Amino acid sequence: MTTTLQDCRALDAQDALAPLRDHFSLPAGVIYLDGNSLGVAPKAAAARVADVVTREWGTDLIKSWNTASWFDLPQRLGNQLAPLIGAGPNEVVCTDSTSINLYKVLSAALNIAREDSPTRKRIVSERSNFPTDLYIAEGLCKERGLELVLVEPEEITASLTAEVAVLMLTHVNYRTGAMHDMAAITAAAHAQGILCVWDLAHSAGAVPVDLNGANADFSIGCGYKYLNGGPGAPAFAWVNPRHANRFWQPLSGWWGHAAPFAFTPDYQPAPGITRYLCGTQPIISLSALQCGLDVFTAAQSLGGMAALRAKSLALTDLFIKLVEERCAGHGLGLATPRDHTQRGSQVCLTRDEGAGVNGQGSGAYAIVQALIARGVIGDFRKGDGGTGRHKDILRFGFTPLYLGYEDVWNAVEHLRQVLESGEWQKAEFNQTHAVT
Amino acid sequence: MTTTLQDCRALDAQDALAPLRDHFSLPAGVIYLDGNSLGVAPKAAAARVADVVTREWGTDLIKSWNTASWFDLPQRLGNQLAPLIGAGPNEVVCTDSTSINLYKVLSAALNIAREDSPTRKRIVSERSNFPTDLYIAEGLCKERGLELVLVEPEEITASLTAEVAVLMLTHVNYRTGAMHDMAAITAAAHAQGILCVWDLAHSAGAVPVDLNGANADFSIGCGYKYLNGGPGAPAFAWVNPRHANRFWQPLSGWWGHAAPFAFTPDYQPAPGITRYLCGTQPIISLSALQCGLDVFTAAQSLGGMAALRAKSLALTDLFIKLVEERCAGHGLGLATPRDHTQRGSQVCLTRDEGAGVNGQGSGAYAIVQALIARGVIGDFRKGDGGTGRHKDILRFGFTPLYLGYEDVWNAVEHLRQVLESGEWQKAEFNQTHAVT
Repeated sequence: MTTTLQDCRALDAQDALAPLRDHFSLPAGVIYLDGNSLGVAPKAAAARVADVVTREWGTDLIKSWNTASWFDLPQRLGNQLAPLIGAGPNEVVCTDSTSINLYKVLSAALNIAREDSPTRKRIVSERSNFPTDLYIAEGLCKERGLELVLVEPEEITASLTAEVAVLMLTHVNYRTGAMHDMAAITAAAHAQGILCVWDLAHSAGAVPVDLNGANADFSIGCGYKYLNGGPGAPAFAWVNPRHANRFWQPLSGWWGHAAPFAFTPDYQPAPGITRYLCGTQPIISLSALQCGLDVFTAAQSLGGMAALRAKSLALTDLFIKLVEERCAGHGLGLATPRDHTQRGSQVCLTRDEGAGVNGQGSGAYAIVQALIARGVIGDFRKGDGGTGRHKDILRFGFTPLYLGYEDVWNAVEHLRQVLESGEWQKAEFNQTHAVT
Repeated sequence: MTTTLQDCRALDAQDALAPLRDHFSLPAGVIYLDGNSLGVAPKAAAARVADVVTREWGTDLIKSWNTASWFDLPQRLGNQLAPLIGAGPNEVVCTDSTSINLYKVLSAALNIAREDSPTRKRIVSERSNFPTDLYIAEGLCKERGLELVLVEPEEITASLTAEVAVLMLTHVNYRTGAMHDMAAITAAAHAQGILCVWDLAHSAGAVPVDLNGANADFSIGCGYKYLNGGPGAPAFAWVNPRHANRFWQPLSGWWGHAAPFAFTPDYQPAPGITRYLCGTQPIISLSALQCGLDVFTAAQSLGGMAALRAKSLALTDLFIKLVEERCAGHGLGLATPRDHTQRGSQVCLTRDEGAGVNGQGSGAYAIVQALIARGVIGDFRKGDGGTGRHKDILRFGFTPLYLGYEDVWNAVEHLRQVLESGEWQKAEFNQTHAVT
C-alpha cells in the first residue's frame, strides 16, 4: 500500500519524541537532512555561550576555572555523553578533535598490542573509512615502521591474522550509512589477539552504542554531528578501563598530568581517562557542546536512545519507501542497507554514471544542488566515476530529535519534483563539484 | 624623586594608547594584572560569538563553511597574528592547543635535525620552562629513544653540543618574566647545527617578536593570554618557510591534506603551513580569538607593538619603582630582570621563606589572596620551599592594551595596605595553596 501525506501526518501526531524539536533553532523554510555533517543549533546554545563570554570570561575571568568548573568540563561532558555510547562514569572525555583523539587512542592501542605481541606490525582498516582516520593511521605507521592494510568490508574477518595489532573501524560508514556489528567484529578480533578501535563519528547520538557491552578497547567520536555541539565542537575519547592506566598517550600535555598545578618538570599521567587530555580546552566551544548533550539528557524521560533509534529507523524506512514509490525511473539506487541491524541514521541514494546531463556523469551533484535551492539540505559524495565500486551518492541524514515524518514526505516530494521537472539539469546546478 | 598619584595621572593623560581600553569589557572594581594567564574579553566578542551561534551556525548551518569562510579561519587568523611575531603571510595558523602544536613542530624539528645529523639524540630545554612543554618533549623522547636535557638559563650556551638536535625554549619565562635574546641564542644554536623551537606563550601580543629576523626554525604560542582570545582559545604555530614543505607533522589529519574533500585514502600534505592543521577546528572559540586579534589590528595606527612595548616597559618600571618606594621592609624582592632587554610584560615579586605567619612559609600566597579580595587580580607561583633557587612568587602581568598608570599606582597602594595592615595574615587568606 502506498504511503500518503496523511499517513505521515498521523505518524507525527503519534510521535512521543516530537516535543524534542522545540529544543532546536531550525531555520525557516529548511528541511535539514545534513545533521550527520553539522548538527542543528540547540536553542539553549545562544544564551549559554553568551553567559560564558559575558559573565564567566568577561566578569569572572580566571576565577571561572574554579567557580564555573572550567577545569573539569571535559570530564563532566564525558560523563554526560557516556550513556549514549554504553560507557561508564569516568570513562569518557570531551576534548580536542576527532583526528587528534584517534592519534591518542591508536597510539595507546598499538603500544598495548605490541607490548603483548611485538611481532604484530599491522593496522587493518576499511578502504572506505573516513579519510582522516586513514591519514592518522598512515602517519603513525610511518613513524613506527608499521603497516596499514586497507580492506573492503567483506574482507575484514579474513584480514584478522597474527600480524595484526589493531583493527580500526568506523562503526557507521560516512558514505553509505552501513553499520558494522561492533560486538561480533570485536569478538572476532579479540579471538585473534587483536585490539579494536571504534570511530563513533556517525554513531554517537544516532544509534545506540554499547562499548562496554561489546568489550571494545578504545573509541573516539565527533561532537558536531548527531551530538549537535556546534561547528568544530570538541570531540570525545573513550578507553576501556582495563587499558586506562597501562600507557600514557603521546600527547602528554599538562591537562593529562596527575598534578597539573604542581608544575613539576617530569610528566606523571593522571589515573584513568584524564590522561587522554593534553592542553587547555576551548571553553566556549565546549560549552556549546554541553547544550547539545543536554537535549539527549532531556530525551531520557522519553525513552532515550532506544526511542530515538526506533524513530530513526521509521524515518529512514519511510524515506526509502517514498523514494521507491514516488521517484522511480530516474536512475536512483540505494547504497544504505535495508537490514535495520546494518543501517545507521542516514540514507544514501546512488545514481548511475551516464544519468547526468547529456549522458555525462551521474547528475547526483546537480540534484543535490537543486534540492538545496529548494531548502532541502542533503549532501553529495563523489564516487569513483564508474571505475570501481563507488557510485556518486546523494546523502541524507535523519535526526529523530528534530525531524518528523511530514519532513520526510516533503523532502521526497521535492526530490520527485526536481527529477520530474528536470530542473536539476540547469547550468547553475551543474557546476564544478566543489564538495564541502 | 618619589612618584606620586598625580604623576601617574599625568602619564595617563599623555598616553596615546589609552583609547584601546575601550575595546575591552573590564569588570567593575577590578585591577586585572593576570592577562598573562587569561586575557580580558574584548567588547566585540559577545556580539561576534552570538552571530556565529545564531546566524552562521543556527541559520546558515553547513553553508557557513563557505559563506562564513570557516574553512580558512585558521589561516586568516594566522595572517592577522603574523605581524605581531615577525612572521610573513601564510606562515602562521591558529589551531588546536599550545601543547598539541608543540608536539607537531617539535616532531618536525626532530625529523629535520636528525635526518641531517642522525647522531643528534638530545633535546635541550630549561628546567624552569613551562611544564607542558617539558611533558610534550618527554613524551617524544620516550617514543623515539631520545634524551631530554634540562638546564638552568646560564647553562644554555654550554649545553649546545654536537649531541643536540633541538633547543626548545620559552621566550619569556612564565614564573619570572625573564626574556631570552631570541636572535643571539638562535644564532648560537645554529652555529652548532641545532634547530630552535620557540614558545611565545608569554610573548605574542606582549613584546615585539621577530621570528624571521631571528631566523628561528619553529614557533608556537597561546591564544588566551596577551592575545585576549578567550578561555582555552586555540593556539598558533609558525614554521620557517625553509622547513615548511620538508616533513609532515605526525598529527596528519584531513585539514592538513592537500585536497581534504577529494576523500582519497592516502595522505598528501598541503603545501606550507596548512599541513600543520589536523582536524576540524572549534569555530566558535576561533571566532572569539579573532576579536582579540582585531584589537591589535586597531592598535596598528597607534604605533603597534613598538608603542605597546614602550608602554609595557613604562608600566612595569613604574610598578617596580613604586613597590620599592612604598612597600619596603616587608621581605619583598624582585625576580624579574631590571634590564629592559631581558624583561617580558610581567613583574614577579619574591618573598622570603620565613616571612609568612609565625615564620612559616613566605606568606606570598596569602598576600595574593588578600589582593584578590580587594579586586587586584594577580597570581601566585609556588617556589621550592627554600630548597633550591626558586622562591615563592607574586606574579603581576601588565597589559598595555587595557591598563593605565593610575591602575599601577592603585595596585601598589593596595599591596602596601595589605602588607602594612597585616590583613594577609588572616586565616581566610592562609589556606591551602590551591593554585590555579
